[in-house]
Amino acid sequence: MHFDAPLDLDSGARLEQYDLVYETYGQLNAEHSNAILICHALSGHHHVAGTYEGEPRSAGWWDNMVGPGKPVDTRRFFVVGVNNPGGCNGSTGPSSLDPATGKPYGSRFPFMTVRDWVRAQARLADHLGIHRFAAVMGGSLGGMQAMQWAMTYPDRLGHALVIAAAPSLSAQNIGFNEVARQAITTDPDFYQGDYQAHGKLPERGLRLARMLGHITYLSDDAMMEKFGRELLKQKPAFSLDVEFEIESYLRYQGDKFSQRFDANTYLIMTKALDYFDPASETEGSLSAAMARAKAGFLVVSFTSDWRFSPSRSREIVKALLDNGLNVSYSEIDSSQGHDAFLMENGHYFAVIRSYLDRVASEVGA
Amino acid sequence: MHFDAPLDLDSGARLEQYDLVYETYGQLNAEHSNAILICHALSGHHHVAGTYEGEPRSAGWWDNMVGPGKPVDTRRFFVVGVNNPGGCNGSTGPSSLDPATGKPYGSRFPFMTVRDWVRAQARLADHLGIHRFAAVMGGSLGGMQAMQWAMTYPDRLGHALVIAAAPSLSAQNIGFNEVARQAITTDPDFYQGDYQAHGKLPERGLRLARMLGHITYLSDDAMMEKFGRELLKQKPAFSLDVEFEIESYLRYQGDKFSQRFDANTYLIMTKALDYFDPASETEGSLSAAMARAKAGFLVVSFTSDWRFSPSRSREIVKALLDNGLNVSYSEIDSSQGHDAFLMENGHYFAVIRSYLDRVASEVGA
Repeated sequence: MHFDAPLDLDSGARLEQYDLVYETYGQLNAEHSNAILICHALSGHHHVAGTYEGEPRSAGWWDNMVGPGKPVDTRRFFVVGVNNPGGCNGSTGPSSLDPATGKPYGSRFPFMTVRDWVRAQARLADHLGIHRFAAVMGGSLGGMQAMQWAMTYPDRLGHALVIAAAPSLSAQNIGFNEVARQAITTDPDFYQGDYQAHGKLPERGLRLARMLGHITYLSDDAMMEKFGRELLKQKPAFSLDVEFEIESYLRYQGDKFSQRFDANTYLIMTKALDYFDPASETEGSLSAAMARAKAGFLVVSFTSDWRFSPSRSREIVKALLDNGLNVSYSEIDSSQGHDAFLMENGHYFAVIRSYLDRVASEVGA
Repeated sequence: MHFDAPLDLDSGARLEQYDLVYETYGQLNAEHSNAILICHALSGHHHVAGTYEGEPRSAGWWDNMVGPGKPVDTRRFFVVGVNNPGGCNGSTGPSSLDPATGKPYGSRFPFMTVRDWVRAQARLADHLGIHRFAAVMGGSLGGMQAMQWAMTYPDRLGHALVIAAAPSLSAQNIGFNEVARQAITTDPDFYQGDYQAHGKLPERGLRLARMLGHITYLSDDAMMEKFGRELLKQKPAFSLDVEFEIESYLRYQGDKFSQRFDANTYLIMTKALDYFDPASETEGSLSAAMARAKAGFLVVSFTSDWRFSPSRSREIVKALLDNGLNVSYSEIDSSQGHDAFLMENGHYFAVIRSYLDRVASEVGA
């Protein structure tokens, strides 16, 4: 969908015009009351569920969660997935052509905040005829968007599902993001963000950023279960060749990602994560920041998630309870680390299913 | 000290000749029974304690621990610090000139193991007239060397002090090392390790490796205490400039390190860490691997150390107890993460002091 009206951003910059690419699943009911918005995390996009015709390996990133008969049941709900502005999967972002110059935005694309994304999503909802979402949901950075919806548009959603999120990044979280950004920006092929104009891509930096990211998405235990200390060959090579299974996995993930993702988008996404801190606008009180919220909340965390640990989710729960809101909280036993929010897990899926059953009956879906 | 006799390495390679740079503190007694060997970790060296004349900021890396009246009391003990071969602080390493070619070893310097280092340290001890150390001690990778001493030379040490160590790296530990190595080896200035021959240094890669390392040396709590989410300026910059205190700290540490340390040495040290796994030679049984040990042991871990957590130290303790050895174990309450082993802490220092008091009376020091 093309938007001609400019989008004013928290940074003071303005997107004069932009496209958002989105997908929908299921049917919007007559009352337009059964819509669920799915917000994506760092490297996600609009293609949440389903498989494209003739492309059997194209399943959406949350296809286990969203679909007919699945926890987010598309026989009952009208589900919307959207690639956020600043992204690199079809929506206007730094790798798009700037209509003013006919060249890629590159370094001229503005940094964005979670609130900017929520504003852009609300405009998309306007165009889709959705005044109020039955629910807004997401994991990790997506969960932060669900929180932000409840603060920015308290009357435009019934429920917020905040999964594996945090009310702000810790210094350690910011540190990991910063190493990833430095890997990208010090890559000689980065050209201050204008690598496309130079016919280059900072693939080395993006690859390192992704390798590091993957370590933080998994728990130490999950990595030991999956890879252990297994050597690819029987004996140490005493060389820089890949030796351990975990090295092979990380290199593969890094290679794959560096060929599909845009480096400037990675910088924008990590900066938005760093900036997210609603309490900073209310003298450090998350409770005060959430005072405008009216939604019902489901907050979910995973025991082995050391990136956004359960204690961070409990901070959110406390702030919501301080405001007398309806909150369900579930701490899911999992060894999968932060990645657990993307993985099938009986207890987790049952919690989402049962919560959305209630939402469905509220909205007559 | 120069060694003319070749050192045969676990990899099958051979160091034909080499120098080791070392420092000693205190006096070797008439019986040569009061020597303590201090083994260094990833980026350490021989300069353990004291300050060089006219260089007030040159305090050794463990100067709070080692010195007259300190827990490792140099009025009683003769303390030896040595830079391991493969290092970059004076001992023969990849940045040294290969006498065979007159050029830096670079990529031709062999990879080493913890056992190789221990063999080299034993030769140094021979030359110093030390048949048996009262104790061998170290933190992190240094603690692994102390463990290795007890296995390789059971009759040549009375005690091993194994601090903030692990019996092997986890997949997550290896993963972090691998990202650091990839940062170095994919730096265009790396030249397959022969950067000196090209008049270059892979500073970008080494800087990233160190930034990442620093995150893993600190606990999440310690970083929040030290840096929080403090911005250098009052408002977000919405740019790639340094914004948060933690970013500033990591960049500074990375810059400083990349100018003082050798990239090939970093690769050798991290590989030695990855390879260390005594149990792999005894069908996975650490107890069997430690069966030759005769030393008394002090094992110390720190509650907030998530790099080498207390549970890994307890694996060591269990293996030692399985062999009926004398083991003291202390889990120190600290919020400082892995770095805690380098920091002054009343309980920690008291434990070391009291253990070494006992050692001193055993050896008449």
